[in-house]
Amino acid sequence: MGEFELIRQVFEPVARLSRTPGLILGIGDDCAIQRIPEGHELVFSVDTLVEGVHFPRDYNPEYLATRALAVAVSDLAAMGADPVCYTLALTLPRADRPWLERFGRTLAHTSRAFGIALAGGDTTRGPLAVTIQVHGTVPVGQALMRGGAKPGDNVVVSGSLGDAAEALNWLDVEAGQKTNVLLDRYHRPQPRLQLGQYLRGRASAAIDISDGLAADLGHILEASGVGARLDLALLPLSAALAEVAGSNATRQALNGGDDYELCFTVPKSQWLEVQQSREETLTVIGEIVETPGLQLQNASGLECGEGGYDHFR
Amino acid sequence: MGEFELIRQVFEPVARLSRTPGLILGIGDDCAIQRIPEGHELVFSVDTLVEGVHFPRDYNPEYLATRALAVAVSDLAAMGADPVCYTLALTLPRADRPWLERFGRTLAHTSRAFGIALAGGDTTRGPLAVTIQVHGTVPVGQALMRGGAKPGDNVVVSGSLGDAAEALNWLDVEAGQKTNVLLDRYHRPQPRLQLGQYLRGRASAAIDISDGLAADLGHILEASGVGARLDLALLPLSAALAEVAGSNATRQALNGGDDYELCFTVPKSQWLEVQQSREETLTVIGEIVETPGLQLQNASGLECGEGGYDHFR
Repeated sequence: MGEFELIRQVFEPVARLSRTPGLILGIGDDCAIQRIPEGHELVFSVDTLVEGVHFPRDYNPEYLATRALAVAVSDLAAMGADPVCYTLALTLPRADRPWLERFGRTLAHTSRAFGIALAGGDTTRGPLAVTIQVHGTVPVGQALMRGGAKPGDNVVVSGSLGDAAEALNWLDVEAGQKTNVLLDRYHRPQPRLQLGQYLRGRASAAIDISDGLAADLGHILEASGVGARLDLALLPLSAALAEVAGSNATRQALNGGDDYELCFTVPKSQWLEVQQSREETLTVIGEIVETPGLQLQNASGLECGEGGYDHFR
Repeated sequence: MGEFELIRQVFEPVARLSRTPGLILGIGDDCAIQRIPEGHELVFSVDTLVEGVHFPRDYNPEYLATRALAVAVSDLAAMGADPVCYTLALTLPRADRPWLERFGRTLAHTSRAFGIALAGGDTTRGPLAVTIQVHGTVPVGQALMRGGAKPGDNVVVSGSLGDAAEALNWLDVEAGQKTNVLLDRYHRPQPRLQLGQYLRGRASAAIDISDGLAADLGHILEASGVGARLDLALLPLSAALAEVAGSNATRQALNGGDDYELCFTVPKSQWLEVQQSREETLTVIGEIVETPGLQLQNASGLECGEGGYDHFR
């Protein structure tokens, strides 16, 4: 069997199993076709993961399929979008049937879990890399963006922070129960799709935490022309992180990437309703202020200022 | 200046210079946003070019930018779509300012020439590769597809065939006037956007010739459940190819890739109008028949049959 036929045998089932109504034409023509419902617009984002840069060498194909799709879909969550479909540009050193079958099986499961259909792609020969472009829709004008945070808004994060970054220290180590919790956060991030959709019309700004809270909140502050004051004692830490990372836990939560939680701002008047409506953990970690930059308060209430922020980098 | 800032400085002007009305939000948030006009649908396609596989090592950045975008846009032409925007996932071994500036300048020009806007992207560290996903729109249900060819339809190609494939033999050779014509076909393919748009509602099937006429027409035949009889003497050869490739010219025209001309089928009743309406060279090279497979007639009118086809591979 030729390489082309192998690729087809692996990815056609993924496409068939992941179908969504918005995707009119999938794999098999020069282009795919997506229909956008009236009153909606298309939101889309592309992410590349390169072996040895964004994931370890000899990373298992199940984790790779899960992470690559989750990382991309997380951008849809950050916009409050409903997922529809995605393309996969896969560069492989060789057409390894068992590897491809494991990758494809997991991709099919993960696609169904996220409600997103494989629409097409391109497979080429070269060093291992995965580029995924995700497509979603939002009602016209309702996408969550980075530029709307206002002084007085609460700064909120979902879930717990720093777990995935700490996990990087444990990739090659005999893992225990606690580190397994952290590793799972790294290998199988959970994009906050439903939270993002709920936040449409409620949050004033939103972003997903891929590069670390300080960096990603920084993007909101810059786009909104505001600053923020955070209380480091409020950063949500998992029990596993607190135990494994010890005194380094807060630093991981502030600067560690790969969590794919949402960070968003919400007017105080809306906060109670948001908090009461949602089942996931949501934590107010500070508020938006007029003065640009990120001000950090430590546990004893002392200002660390931007200098403190830099020390944490 | 950081790498991030360099990338921003190179690609923001490309985005600014290439803007199109359909792109509502470009670079700078978690996702880009595209609005699809009422009564239209989105068509999209992704292509990866890897150094040493799809383009030569140390290929100049002007050619790379042009080819990568042209190859991707050609898929929009093959669907009869109006181009809107694209994403660029660029993997680079290092952030080389002069290289990036040359790449960006050419990308801006080429984007404007094709009427397509840079909407976003991802730049990562790794072996040189370019992944471009193009977005276009078509009126609902009017996209040109591969599956509609009917027995009796004319098989038509645009322009001349085989030039780009022959050029591959001259990449590293001191070029003359004739070979320069061929090299230009390889380095700067011209997607047939206007022809594709014109063919909506007129052609019964269409594809762009990236892998060679025999292979790509084969995709139409398979998708349509028909066959075709081609007259090899009718394949359109450029004067440059005839002179440079000699007795090998027909083989290059039949099996050589990288031309990015359109191959389409059209009912005989429509052909005269199509031919009279278009200014580009369009050549009838055969017709669709019921019997599956590709039948080839040589210059003396003898059937080469599918065997003949195989000999040419």
